[in-house]
Amino acid sequence: MRHLQHQLSFIRELDRLKSVYRQALVKSDNNRFENSAEHSWHVCIIADLLQEYVDAPIDIQRVMRMLLIHDVVEIDAGDTFAFGTATDLAQQSEQETKAVKRIFGLLPAHQRDEFTALWLEFEEGKSVESRYAKAIDRVVPLFMNLVNEGGGWRRHTITRSQLLRRNDFLRVTMPRLWDFVMSQIDYAVTEGWILKD
Amino acid sequence: MRHLQHQLSFIRELDRLKSVYRQALVKSDNNRFENSAEHSWHVCIIADLLQEYVDAPIDIQRVMRMLLIHDVVEIDAGDTFAFGTATDLAQQSEQETKAVKRIFGLLPAHQRDEFTALWLEFEEGKSVESRYAKAIDRVVPLFMNLVNEGGGWRRHTITRSQLLRRNDFLRVTMPRLWDFVMSQIDYAVTEGWILKD
Repeated sequence: MRHLQHQLSFIRELDRLKSVYRQALVKSDNNRFENSAEHSWHVCIIADLLQEYVDAPIDIQRVMRMLLIHDVVEIDAGDTFAFGTATDLAQQSEQETKAVKRIFGLLPAHQRDEFTALWLEFEEGKSVESRYAKAIDRVVPLFMNLVNEGGGWRRHTITRSQLLRRNDFLRVTMPRLWDFVMSQIDYAVTEGWILKD
Repeated sequence: MRHLQHQLSFIRELDRLKSVYRQALVKSDNNRFENSAEHSWHVCIIADLLQEYVDAPIDIQRVMRMLLIHDVVEIDAGDTFAFGTATDLAQQSEQETKAVKRIFGLLPAHQRDEFTALWLEFEEGKSVESRYAKAIDRVVPLFMNLVNEGGGWRRHTITRSQLLRRNDFLRVTMPRLWDFVMSQIDYAVTEGWILKD
């Protein structure tokens, strides 16, 4: 039963991701901030949906598991704005490494190791699965901002080149979507939602 | 590109599940109501976590995909309280059937058919995968209410026998967890969170 108790304490801990808020807005809910739990659901189902655009064999189950847990560390480390400074991102990385130990450490050893490995694979972005997962994680806010008159972008000053860099995983893993995404970024420039640079 | 446009319209539609609120409370976020998108994330990761308790071979990928989409129909049909009347549940079922057609109908044909089949499999609860998915969907609110002094139960009058019936899928698919869940239900009775009947 001790094994189960460990799993239950992790399950209870996960609940806290529902109170970590991101910079993205939920259009359907009066533009409140989106939390990382519902974001994780959204990207996971979208990864399932768009896998046909990856021009390589992928293990979609591993992609989905990565996306389900990729933000869990934010329970301790908080969400970092995608376009934050290098110092922000370095600090975040240190806090996330501690969070991985504490949060996945609640689990029985084999699941702790499995989830930690999945999280690391996602962070490193070397495997085709992690690159695809990252591409989806990064392009979904773009899809949503486009139907929300700029959404979260308009609260900050975001430039075209920042967005292109941010979506580089997409260019590499889903070249067939890249031209479309480029055209959408250019549309956002003409609407004044992001800055041309 | 028309194919992609269909997928994007479905992705935008999914966003609306973040504004469908359930009777469950999110303890970590000042006990606000939980929405169906973050709930779907939570049950999906928990299904992955607890699969060792199913005493039969299961296709966990299909379980996870079912749980990701099982509540999408609520975008049109709304959430129905788990312990609602038979009339509530019959009305809900009719609305959900319409919602399946409209919402999954946004997708390209092969994905529409695939998602519709997954949703139907979950609803019917005949396959081992759908029974396990249902068991998880139903037991997670119990886990959360137990650490939240009764949580959502206390807003309604719930009886021990209602809860046992509601968790019957768990008794069948995860007998090794059943005794533990029974003991937790009895604990909730002694705490006065649910009624002994």
